[in-house]
Amino acid sequence: MDAPLYVTGHQQPDTDSICSALAYARLKQTETDAVPARAGPLNPESEFVLDRWEVEPPELLEDAADKQLILVDHNEYSQAVPGARDAQIVEIVDHHRIGGIETSDPILFRNEPVGSTATILTKLYDEANVEIGSDTAGLLLSGLLSDTVVLRSPTTTAQDETVAERLAEIADVDYEEYGKELLQQKSKLGEKEPREMVLGDFKEFEFGEYLVGIGQVETVDPAVVLEQTEAVLEAMDEVVDERNYDVLLLLVTDLLEEESTALVAGDRPQTVASALDTSFTDRSAFLPGVMSRKKQVVPHLESAFS
Amino acid sequence: MDAPLYVTGHQQPDTDSICSALAYARLKQTETDAVPARAGPLNPESEFVLDRWEVEPPELLEDAADKQLILVDHNEYSQAVPGARDAQIVEIVDHHRIGGIETSDPILFRNEPVGSTATILTKLYDEANVEIGSDTAGLLLSGLLSDTVVLRSPTTTAQDETVAERLAEIADVDYEEYGKELLQQKSKLGEKEPREMVLGDFKEFEFGEYLVGIGQVETVDPAVVLEQTEAVLEAMDEVVDERNYDVLLLLVTDLLEEESTALVAGDRPQTVASALDTSFTDRSAFLPGVMSRKKQVVPHLESAFS
Repeated sequence: MDAPLYVTGHQQPDTDSICSALAYARLKQTETDAVPARAGPLNPESEFVLDRWEVEPPELLEDAADKQLILVDHNEYSQAVPGARDAQIVEIVDHHRIGGIETSDPILFRNEPVGSTATILTKLYDEANVEIGSDTAGLLLSGLLSDTVVLRSPTTTAQDETVAERLAEIADVDYEEYGKELLQQKSKLGEKEPREMVLGDFKEFEFGEYLVGIGQVETVDPAVVLEQTEAVLEAMDEVVDERNYDVLLLLVTDLLEEESTALVAGDRPQTVASALDTSFTDRSAFLPGVMSRKKQVVPHLESAFS
Repeated sequence: MDAPLYVTGHQQPDTDSICSALAYARLKQTETDAVPARAGPLNPESEFVLDRWEVEPPELLEDAADKQLILVDHNEYSQAVPGARDAQIVEIVDHHRIGGIETSDPILFRNEPVGSTATILTKLYDEANVEIGSDTAGLLLSGLLSDTVVLRSPTTTAQDETVAERLAEIADVDYEEYGKELLQQKSKLGEKEPREMVLGDFKEFEFGEYLVGIGQVETVDPAVVLEQTEAVLEAMDEVVDERNYDVLLLLVTDLLEEESTALVAGDRPQTVASALDTSFTDRSAFLPGVMSRKKQVVPHLESAFS
């Protein structure tokens, strides 16, 4: 039980993963040694957040074998830091589907269908009677607003709204204004290579015997991506070849219009089309009202492929 | 989403499974239709509890396919009601190891390393601001005291103690006295057949490629079982043959001395012996200090077999 304890989010970390690892490590540090960690590079939005709240980034964890891990914002091995299968998972706090992890011992596993992991962590601070400092509130608020697209995503619950208001008060910001700054960071895509667009916010799933990758670009200006569709599709084909995916889906989500365009690569576009009740033309499909990979895409693909 | 919703504990239900299904169904009923259910026959202790608090037993659920399920007090398919793999799991509240279930959608999964599922449910009542009535408190207290052997099991936490005191006050009983009544019910073994002793409180585990059954007899008078060791071992051999177990372990736990005798059947006694740091003589081993299958036996076997 003396292995070092790391609190870490998923691969291709988003702002909720980064901020949740930092905020939960701070809570755990009130009772034990705990190191905030990350499973990959910071995205521009997370860099902006860390600058804004003057917080050091979590440590990059390259191999989790033989360590103790607290997983935040994910609960499946295929999304975890390398070596997680040989680590001891000691806690999980998340808001996604249940992903099949097994442990030997009874552990805390707190998964709730709310808009962000940060929302649940705020409750854990309250339950532990630990006061939330101003910069911790800033981190939690950033995770919450980022994951819920400033409370606009269909994953948003009444709890997220209440928690956001409270955190904004502690952090002393207007959450609508601060949220707009975050959205702008999220959309800094113009200078990116197509491959980075595909893999920037990316998750891998094992659905039965199928290996499926789903990327998402969230932007206020989808044209920046879609005018390069041909190059993006080429990058997707490359990733499919390298990683042996059965399907790779890229959601280009318009944050203002609350809709997505899906691009597809791999051998099974037909299964994806019928799962999402759409059809692909030139490997592209329009998905009105779709903003959430987790809630509006993953469940349909999971049942179609399993 | 219109399939009927059942709240159910594990197969070979113990008192925590029965009472948790009843108490959580009552809480869910404040917002939706929910039917308390059970995955097997009532044991004498649970019958005593239902009589004492004048509560109807949960409905026997024989096939869960195409239903919505809330799992309480378990979170692995091998312990769930038949058909659970074809049901929609919509919530889980438990206090065991994490058992590998997958879902399509994000759901509430509340697993905490405390002494009983009833302890967690008491917190869920509080979080929902729902008052706990006197007979619901009696049910929850029964689950808690039964699973923690009246707060003596090594699984007992400070939370269990606080919750037990509060529930006892609402239910208007002395929990030590009431606990003793429960222990006596648990020990009503004299008239049982050896096969019933083996399978009365029984759980099945898939550890990697191995299928392992672990039964437990909790009693204040272990001699009643141990003087029939030969017949019990014969019954265990039969069960191993019928169900193709690699190992079947029976813990005969002395609730007063806080120790167990383990009997073993199947092809791999040596793996079990080294996992538990003991050795078998005539297929029997003494385990001082061992009271908890979940905390003191399952983790060791799981790592030895996986």
